[in-house]
Amino acid sequence: MKVIEKAAEPAPQKSILDILFGRPLSSEEDTAERIGPVAGVPVFGLDALSSAAYGPEAALTILIPLGLTGLTYIVPISLTIIVLLSIVYFSYRQTIAAYPTGGGSYTVATQNIGGRAGLLAGAALMIDYILNVAVGISAGVGALVSALPGLQPYTLALCLTLLLLLTLVNLRGVRETGLVFLAPTYLFVACLGGVILFEVIKTLLLGSHAAPVVTPPPLPSAVAAVSLWPLIKAFASGCTAMTGVEAVSNGVQAFREPRVKSAQTALTIIIAILVLLLAGIAYLSRAYGIGATPPGQPGYQSVLSQLTAAVAGKNTVYFIVIGAILTVLSLSANTSFADFPRLCRAIAEDGYLPNVFTIRGRRLVFTFGVCSLAILAGLLLIAFRGVTDRLIPLFAVGAFTAFTLSQAGMVMHWKRGGGHGARASMFINGLGAFSTGVTLCIIIVAKFIEGAWITVIAIPGLIMLMIYVRKHYDRIERETALREPANLKNIINPIVVLPLQRWSRVAEKALRFAYTLSRDLRVLHIQGEGQPNQQAADTLINSWEQYVEKPALQAGYTPPELVVLHSPYRFVLTPIFEYVLEVERKYPDRHVAVLVPELIERHWFYHLLHNQRANALKLMLYLKGNRRIIVINVPWYVR
Amino acid sequence: MKVIEKAAEPAPQKSILDILFGRPLSSEEDTAERIGPVAGVPVFGLDALSSAAYGPEAALTILIPLGLTGLTYIVPISLTIIVLLSIVYFSYRQTIAAYPTGGGSYTVATQNIGGRAGLLAGAALMIDYILNVAVGISAGVGALVSALPGLQPYTLALCLTLLLLLTLVNLRGVRETGLVFLAPTYLFVACLGGVILFEVIKTLLLGSHAAPVVTPPPLPSAVAAVSLWPLIKAFASGCTAMTGVEAVSNGVQAFREPRVKSAQTALTIIIAILVLLLAGIAYLSRAYGIGATPPGQPGYQSVLSQLTAAVAGKNTVYFIVIGAILTVLSLSANTSFADFPRLCRAIAEDGYLPNVFTIRGRRLVFTFGVCSLAILAGLLLIAFRGVTDRLIPLFAVGAFTAFTLSQAGMVMHWKRGGGHGARASMFINGLGAFSTGVTLCIIIVAKFIEGAWITVIAIPGLIMLMIYVRKHYDRIERETALREPANLKNIINPIVVLPLQRWSRVAEKALRFAYTLSRDLRVLHIQGEGQPNQQAADTLINSWEQYVEKPALQAGYTPPELVVLHSPYRFVLTPIFEYVLEVERKYPDRHVAVLVPELIERHWFYHLLHNQRANALKLMLYLKGNRRIIVINVPWYVR
Repeated sequence: MKVIEKAAEPAPQKSILDILFGRPLSSEEDTAERIGPVAGVPVFGLDALSSAAYGPEAALTILIPLGLTGLTYIVPISLTIIVLLSIVYFSYRQTIAAYPTGGGSYTVATQNIGGRAGLLAGAALMIDYILNVAVGISAGVGALVSALPGLQPYTLALCLTLLLLLTLVNLRGVRETGLVFLAPTYLFVACLGGVILFEVIKTLLLGSHAAPVVTPPPLPSAVAAVSLWPLIKAFASGCTAMTGVEAVSNGVQAFREPRVKSAQTALTIIIAILVLLLAGIAYLSRAYGIGATPPGQPGYQSVLSQLTAAVAGKNTVYFIVIGAILTVLSLSANTSFADFPRLCRAIAEDGYLPNVFTIRGRRLVFTFGVCSLAILAGLLLIAFRGVTDRLIPLFAVGAFTAFTLSQAGMVMHWKRGGGHGARASMFINGLGAFSTGVTLCIIIVAKFIEGAWITVIAIPGLIMLMIYVRKHYDRIERETALREPANLKNIINPIVVLPLQRWSRVAEKALRFAYTLSRDLRVLHIQGEGQPNQQAADTLINSWEQYVEKPALQAGYTPPELVVLHSPYRFVLTPIFEYVLEVERKYPDRHVAVLVPELIERHWFYHLLHNQRANALKLMLYLKGNRRIIVINVPWYVR
Repeated sequence: MKVIEKAAEPAPQKSILDILFGRPLSSEEDTAERIGPVAGVPVFGLDALSSAAYGPEAALTILIPLGLTGLTYIVPISLTIIVLLSIVYFSYRQTIAAYPTGGGSYTVATQNIGGRAGLLAGAALMIDYILNVAVGISAGVGALVSALPGLQPYTLALCLTLLLLLTLVNLRGVRETGLVFLAPTYLFVACLGGVILFEVIKTLLLGSHAAPVVTPPPLPSAVAAVSLWPLIKAFASGCTAMTGVEAVSNGVQAFREPRVKSAQTALTIIIAILVLLLAGIAYLSRAYGIGATPPGQPGYQSVLSQLTAAVAGKNTVYFIVIGAILTVLSLSANTSFADFPRLCRAIAEDGYLPNVFTIRGRRLVFTFGVCSLAILAGLLLIAFRGVTDRLIPLFAVGAFTAFTLSQAGMVMHWKRGGGHGARASMFINGLGAFSTGVTLCIIIVAKFIEGAWITVIAIPGLIMLMIYVRKHYDRIERETALREPANLKNIINPIVVLPLQRWSRVAEKALRFAYTLSRDLRVLHIQGEGQPNQQAADTLINSWEQYVEKPALQAGYTPPELVVLHSPYRFVLTPIFEYVLEVERKYPDRHVAVLVPELIERHWFYHLLHNQRANALKLMLYLKGNRRIIVINVPWYVR
């Protein structure tokens, strides 16, 4: 046994890939690619934070029919959501601590409840992440288009461009993604937070009678009486504000040491900001009497736009705040880009997804996962022509399924592990599992008709696909597994079949190569009308003795057997194919190597000028699959 | 030398191909596939005959601005065309006699004037044939749609369906095509001829004062004075009636023995009918005062429709006649299907087109030519959405270029050959060449702005492409030609490089095959993060001695060298690729065989579950093309 260690270095000259994605990163550079809590917020938190922009709005939209009365309920609804968010926060803190190598819902549910529960969580999250990319991008572009109506015809193109940019940034690595999105994230937080804080303080000083700079549109009078159902639906819609919270727990490995602490800090920052935003928005909507306007109708204005205008007037500040909100909305897709590939990696490591998902690319990100996400989201965007509003109700189902399973899994974890503080942790996670589970039921019931049923169908479909993939891998493993030494006895040289139509340098090369494989050669010649170059074909047969037999004998080899097949039906491939099968039947202990001389052209379009018989023959022999036939292309490179 | 003759028979069970195209025909069945003059008319004459439906109409359309005065000129214009047609007829009769193996304009011009002239004729005809298919089909469908306006939205679909049907019929062989189109062709001739004859006799008896059954729409009053230019333009337009006349001379080989006689008879029938139709239409238009109506405007009615209505009234006879005209119009594309593949074969035999055009398919037709024509015409139809009126002016340029060159070639032929009657033949062909040449100039000048310029550009483009193809073939011929015995000295077994990531049955099979090739084996193992199945990889290295070395020594082989490449950048292909190139540099006198074990799945979609590295590696090694590296896929067929 001889082992040579060699390092394969990337080429020193810059390739197009280097310019697009940056130089390749060595596996050892992993540490430098890790991020701290500050960069963690844009990488993993954009989804959660941007939820503040649409969660309250979604709840308020449901309350429109209740008029001004409905508005009084936004504060208790938001408080309920905040309480739920806090419970989820504490349980994910614990998950991060318990799974420092990444404790996404898939991992936690698989390890503590069982494989099927894990797949359920995994599939739910995968669908959620794909939807999030499509919805996030189309929401951002939608807002841009409503500000600049001239761009309307380019909606889809803008969506796809944004998707491409996000994909490129994410392919450049985690650290660069963090750096790129740092500024817009914190600008958003500063702007919206500043406006809200400023105003909350002002209204607290002035009492509840705040004077808006720009008066929001008056609320329509109530057309429905208050009852429990619309309030529940409003709560279910408002819960979309919680999507994206699980992202950090999945990506602990991306954080710098002390890993757990960094991840927990990032999660704390994200949740704290989100709670502040949600509370502030609820309070101010109530104070200013700001309700939602019916979406998709003339005069539509988002709640945050009304709120900012009421606080600051329609001046520069307003446009900066609105700009920051739009940017963050369209970048919210980025959380999916950070988490989806990690989730797929975890699932693929268990064999439920193609194992190409486990390979880190040149910039240490899971290239295949990033690209798959981009393609799937791109298809969704194309299918819906860039307007994905109708997908929003599908959203929260996946996230809350994952929440519930993850926390139920943690309960089992503490129960099994025991130890100091386990009871308290169990209580927190149990409370989390219970409350998110109840919420999930509410969401499914409230949103079933609006589209949640699609998710309810798609999740089991995806699970079945994953089980199928795993079964296939298992089958191949069973079939090919070998736990014993190689059997190298009775190796006989193959019989070589070499189809030749004319004598040329290509034929000579193939013949030379054939003799390196075996002394048992059969040259196959197809005769019959329809063979181009009849003259050249005749040369081969007439000069066989002089061109081939004599030199072979002189070199001490058995001359090849020349087999002339007459083909009255002008078939070429079928006779070769059948001859090979016949030889293979006749010699059950030998390999049959079919040598196919092939012209390799420098340009693909030259291929049109030559018969594609080599490839067709290979395909035919592959399809009739036999283990002892091997097709070998002998390339002749055209200068 | 050992020669075994074997007949490859088609499979006895009927395949889907047999049902679509009929059973394969042996080359010996060629004679039975030949056609007589009666079947020759529909196969080669549909284009020429259907010209009667649009030639006079095209001339009359140009005469519209001259009002009733214009109509008086249709008789002399038609007479000129008929004289021209007769000259062309006599010269093509001679061509058929002189070139009994098929004397298309390409062959005649190449052999008598020169290669470039031949290419010019060939390119002109090729473009003409493609246009003819698109225009013929869209004219037929257009007429059908104007009769049944409800079909309007399906114009393109109808065109493509008709194209598909024509392609299928033609792929079934020449004889079947003749049989299928026999009835509609002779129905057309009988109907239109009958109407015209009946009426000519009637008007002759009644003097010039024929009483129409249905009075044709009154001609508009003249808006332009009579001058030479519109008359010349009308003549140029009317000349489209002559397209398709060259078809028979190109397809002599398709006729039954006595071949020349059969072909000449078919040509005589076609021309005779065409002359009768043209003369009759001209005479009756004049007699009834039938002019063209402006096309594309409300109230449009074709000349033949007016004429039939005037003769027979709008009754059953009218609808049968119109139906026959429409059928033949849409089937006129068939002439192209009969001739285009033969033309391409002739050009490809000289190396100016890919040689796949020379291969006769299962039904003894040139499958590739038929399919190319269908695809090119299909693209034209799609590009013009099934309405190709604007292509009509492009039409006659190709046909008349071919006429002129063919007859000029015949002049040279007689001049060189001499012998009895050569002078007379020379005169006839010379007159033909001169008159068609003059007509060609008139057509180009008269139709240049309307679109003939496209043909004038496209023909040289096609010629350049053909010269380029020939040059490429010549280069490859020079490069690979070998007129001496094979050099079979100093053949050394290849160095085998076998990349293995884990130990399995697949690896064992590859190893066994490697030993049939050579004793000089290198097993390549890539180490580094990102390799799936790290555990399995470790097994390979740790058990190397037990699993591979010992059995190799026991079997009497040199054990393979195990080369472990550390790949910090997680590249897999690049290290293998570079290692292979290095080995190849180190041993300039050896072949390097790269064995790539490959899982062959029964279904294509399973391929997604496995790395496509085998193919990527092959592609990389092909692109960096080196003559001593051969990639061998060792297939493992998954059960």
